[in-house]
Amino acid sequence: MNKLKNSDSIQTISFIGAGNVATQMAKNLYQKGFKIKQIYSRTEASAVLLSQQVEANFTTSLKEISSDVNLIVISVNDKALIEITPSLDLGQTLTVHTGGSIPMSQLEGVSSRIGVIYPLQTFTKSHDISFEKLPLCVEANNEKDLKDLLSLSKRLSTKVASVSSKQRKTIHLAAVFACNFSNHMLAIADEILTKEDLELGLLQPLVEETITKAFTITPKKGQSGPAIRRDDNVINEHLKRLEKHPDFSDIYKKISNSIQNI
Amino acid sequence: MNKLKNSDSIQTISFIGAGNVATQMAKNLYQKGFKIKQIYSRTEASAVLLSQQVEANFTTSLKEISSDVNLIVISVNDKALIEITPSLDLGQTLTVHTGGSIPMSQLEGVSSRIGVIYPLQTFTKSHDISFEKLPLCVEANNEKDLKDLLSLSKRLSTKVASVSSKQRKTIHLAAVFACNFSNHMLAIADEILTKEDLELGLLQPLVEETITKAFTITPKKGQSGPAIRRDDNVINEHLKRLEKHPDFSDIYKKISNSIQNI
Repeated sequence: MNKLKNSDSIQTISFIGAGNVATQMAKNLYQKGFKIKQIYSRTEASAVLLSQQVEANFTTSLKEISSDVNLIVISVNDKALIEITPSLDLGQTLTVHTGGSIPMSQLEGVSSRIGVIYPLQTFTKSHDISFEKLPLCVEANNEKDLKDLLSLSKRLSTKVASVSSKQRKTIHLAAVFACNFSNHMLAIADEILTKEDLELGLLQPLVEETITKAFTITPKKGQSGPAIRRDDNVINEHLKRLEKHPDFSDIYKKISNSIQNI
Repeated sequence: MNKLKNSDSIQTISFIGAGNVATQMAKNLYQKGFKIKQIYSRTEASAVLLSQQVEANFTTSLKEISSDVNLIVISVNDKALIEITPSLDLGQTLTVHTGGSIPMSQLEGVSSRIGVIYPLQTFTKSHDISFEKLPLCVEANNEKDLKDLLSLSKRLSTKVASVSSKQRKTIHLAAVFACNFSNHMLAIADEILTKEDLELGLLQPLVEETITKAFTITPKKGQSGPAIRRDDNVINEHLKRLEKHPDFSDIYKKISNSIQNI
């Protein structure tokens, strides 16, 4: 386990929430030498489990959350975050949330010192993930806390960026295209293949190479396929094959046009 | 270098084409112990370069292509394949092409024994790629040659499948969604981010995790984001942000609907 320096302004941290993000973030901070003091969760089993893993106390009562720490991390889903904030008064204790689309201002009634640490990754509780190469988007409502949150984040990850609430929303929108919509393209491919007894796994090397290329030479330069070649024979044949799937053929047309226009 | 067994029906191979696929396939076959006899390319420099790498002869004249081998691999782009086939007469020599969307029947005038070996990957000449985990889709117009092409392919790769021309077209259509269209989702994300001085690289870990998850638990089960959660607040906010990009907002709507319907 690493040791903190005395110069680190943030040494003690509590968590509100014991879900996927809270669990992975608390464990990574604990491993880097931060003292995790308290874990709150509505669900006692979750609070106990995480508190044992990071040598913290636990509580299931919002009223028992102690503000006697350097930082409180609220890591619950968007809906719960909006529900929970009116009942929280953490005075002057630096308080951050970890969400992608909720603005920092959601915490304005909770504390006078607020911020965000948004890790750009999807988490599962059971699968431990290292934060080392994980982009962390950091925001705060004052310069001193921003500096401290940035240096805490740099102890966890080599990819730390200062990002405003507006920029964070942009990242979230971009992620919907890059992740959620890419995933749906694979779902459509899967449906097309399965109907002819073929497996999606056939495409795995090709998809992985496409993604690697996109991040290496930019997706615009890496674009291949009938649309960018303006190969109308192939495009028309594909659209004919999709006649029974108006959803898919509509998407095929729209994206092909967009590839030709971008 | 490996050695072939006497029982291997295919021992000697020539290539028509010296592009990306031809280069990588010839080098992989050469390394597995096959004798590469002749390389044809219109471009002398390409023919020479590849012939030197696999200890073969070369020619730039279609008339000089010798049919005295066990297999001829035609590996040129779709357009060239259609142009070149009327001038080829390879008698009874087993002849395959390596394309994704051209049916095997394109070779019917070229030889009486025809087939396809379609490697599901994108290639670059300069970057050597191992065929070991690369799906190879194999087809032939008779059982004996199918068996021989399958065993040749199994010497190159652990992922060999017997695939009809119709199935191959299906794979090609699915690949347009899984690769070309996924790549365009990244291109849109890139454009959205760049406008606010943010880098696409921020999303790399998230995209990689999305893809890994899709191939592990299926893309349908791995789907996340506002569409599948039917989170209309976020969806409407995103559509508002995209107002100046009718292309992107149209795609956003269509794909979100499709995610909810699939």
